[in-house]
Amino acid sequence: MSIILKLNMGFNWRPEKFIYLFTFFFITGCIPLNDNEARKEVKVTPTLVIHGGAGTIKRENLTPELETKYNAILNKALEEGYFILENGGTSTDAVIKAIQILERSPLFNAGVGAVFTHEGKNELDASIMVGSNGMAGAVAGVSRIKSPIEAAYTVMIKSPHVMLTGKGAEKFSAQNGLEMVNPDYFYTEERYQQLLNIKESEKVELDPEGKTISAMLIAKDSKFGTVGAVALDKYGTLAAGTSTGGITNKRYGRIGDSPIIGAGTYADNRTCAVSATGHGEFFIRNVVAYDIAARMKYQNKDLKTAANEVIQELKVKEGFGGVICLDKNGNIAMPFNTAGMYRGYIKEKGKANVQLFGIPDTKN
Amino acid sequence: MSIILKLNMGFNWRPEKFIYLFTFFFITGCIPLNDNEARKEVKVTPTLVIHGGAGTIKRENLTPELETKYNAILNKALEEGYFILENGGTSTDAVIKAIQILERSPLFNAGVGAVFTHEGKNELDASIMVGSNGMAGAVAGVSRIKSPIEAAYTVMIKSPHVMLTGKGAEKFSAQNGLEMVNPDYFYTEERYQQLLNIKESEKVELDPEGKTISAMLIAKDSKFGTVGAVALDKYGTLAAGTSTGGITNKRYGRIGDSPIIGAGTYADNRTCAVSATGHGEFFIRNVVAYDIAARMKYQNKDLKTAANEVIQELKVKEGFGGVICLDKNGNIAMPFNTAGMYRGYIKEKGKANVQLFGIPDTKN
Repeated sequence: MSIILKLNMGFNWRPEKFIYLFTFFFITGCIPLNDNEARKEVKVTPTLVIHGGAGTIKRENLTPELETKYNAILNKALEEGYFILENGGTSTDAVIKAIQILERSPLFNAGVGAVFTHEGKNELDASIMVGSNGMAGAVAGVSRIKSPIEAAYTVMIKSPHVMLTGKGAEKFSAQNGLEMVNPDYFYTEERYQQLLNIKESEKVELDPEGKTISAMLIAKDSKFGTVGAVALDKYGTLAAGTSTGGITNKRYGRIGDSPIIGAGTYADNRTCAVSATGHGEFFIRNVVAYDIAARMKYQNKDLKTAANEVIQELKVKEGFGGVICLDKNGNIAMPFNTAGMYRGYIKEKGKANVQLFGIPDTKN
Repeated sequence: MSIILKLNMGFNWRPEKFIYLFTFFFITGCIPLNDNEARKEVKVTPTLVIHGGAGTIKRENLTPELETKYNAILNKALEEGYFILENGGTSTDAVIKAIQILERSPLFNAGVGAVFTHEGKNELDASIMVGSNGMAGAVAGVSRIKSPIEAAYTVMIKSPHVMLTGKGAEKFSAQNGLEMVNPDYFYTEERYQQLLNIKESEKVELDPEGKTISAMLIAKDSKFGTVGAVALDKYGTLAAGTSTGGITNKRYGRIGDSPIIGAGTYADNRTCAVSATGHGEFFIRNVVAYDIAARMKYQNKDLKTAANEVIQELKVKEGFGGVICLDKNGNIAMPFNTAGMYRGYIKEKGKANVQLFGIPDTKN
């Protein structure tokens, strides 16, 4: 998504060449890059951090085979995303790459493997934000876009809007050449079974009028498989992205925090990049992603302190989940207040670090 | 929306009456109130602040008749909302009341008089938040709910969710007994004409492929008629609400800042209540409503300083609009970076203060 122009000018310099060169640099200087950021290398270590959801993730709940699978796919997302950073790509491109790998895996609640709505559909949400210029894009409630994170990116760069929803977002994506799929592309038997199980228990638990949605039914679906990535490129630009299927049995066009800038996703080069996973309503009401940045900006707190505070305060309010965070110096924080969180980071090729279970960072 | 129970116990006290009384207070003590807040009076002056949108609002653009109409309806909203506060009602109820009066007026871009989408529809968004418990509700992209702000309130108190969208939000509202209307209930000739005019100019300005949405077309629609209210009740609880039709000629299920907690609406008793109006994309990316609260919370800034800073910084980024803000002590700030903003406040019956044009507070 970035264009690299290579010029071979030779060595026989003549005056008109200087004019060409001046004109070239003048024009390119006027063209805003994707990130509206001069691609000047700065002294930072390119870094990529990812998550695949937080929740009741304990070793005793995973078979060794499944644990191996999670490790493998998280490693793959980190290595492939890092390959982009290592080769001069932007943090935005690395975030998209890593998230797309997780979207295509049925192991996570995003893209293929997304949870089902009450009506037995998959309605996907995603968002992305770039820290150098504060640009952002999001889609919500889409069922036919193969890669929701790519759609969020397309909203950011091809429309003056931040958030497009439903069939409108699908139409926009199709018009802009994104790959569209049949809604059953996202179907997995396991997720569908989860919906049937929850609907079965709902029959017992719904109040007699059958009108309200029981909060308990959401709490029970206690593994939040949202995926996300934050990255820092060698130009010093941070980016953050998040992609999700929401919560099993969701109804009424419910939207969680994942597509909401400030709640589920935020990036600002002055502070940090954040992607969240958890009980979305709590993350919206507490403006979680931006609150971490605000504590850094206004209280001069370091990344880890700011992130840990926010996640601990959420726990007190019984808002469960976690975040991955990265600051402009490459510092990482991955606090969560649940039993585990699929997570990992990479700062050097071949040295991806993946963790599934806690002790959470919040207790470090 | 609050229930006042009146008991006439007489004076012939008998032991079983004490038991009744004890049981009554025990049970009512266990029932969470709307705001989940003890209704204890505190020493504050109940206050209501409203807006009806910011933009190119200048005296020379308004006929005297229209100016009178705007003044009258803003006064009515303030007086009727204040009547609730004065009589022991909650800030939430006052916010809803004031917004509903503006929603029913064709003068504002909310409810009746909402702007039209590219497809010639009215798609409405609204949100509400309560400062005592951080609860919030929102609807987006709805076309059949008579009062979107009431729908946002119903999402808050009758569902475990914060944000419902589209037909799902309509279904939820209908199931919960809200008044539904035919979509043409929101139609006004003037707004429809605005759409036709913009579409006409669009034919000239759209790029040859006709795929992208020109940002210029939005900037031209330079009066943002979103409505909102913030209130402080005598129990010391702040509330904020916002309702809008979005932007003329919007497409693809675009959602602006109005239904987004932290962007267009925010309330926290520890800091302030905020409702925003303006170019929504800028308000989302800059998490405007929460950013004002964050500067108060983390930098100990007073309301006016925090609000002015945020609106001035937006102007530098060419993000146009304004906010109304209220803190727990009844201090008011109404900064905007446009020519004018329909706005007003009331702290005493019969003494509503309404203003339409600048000088904005930011320059005070």
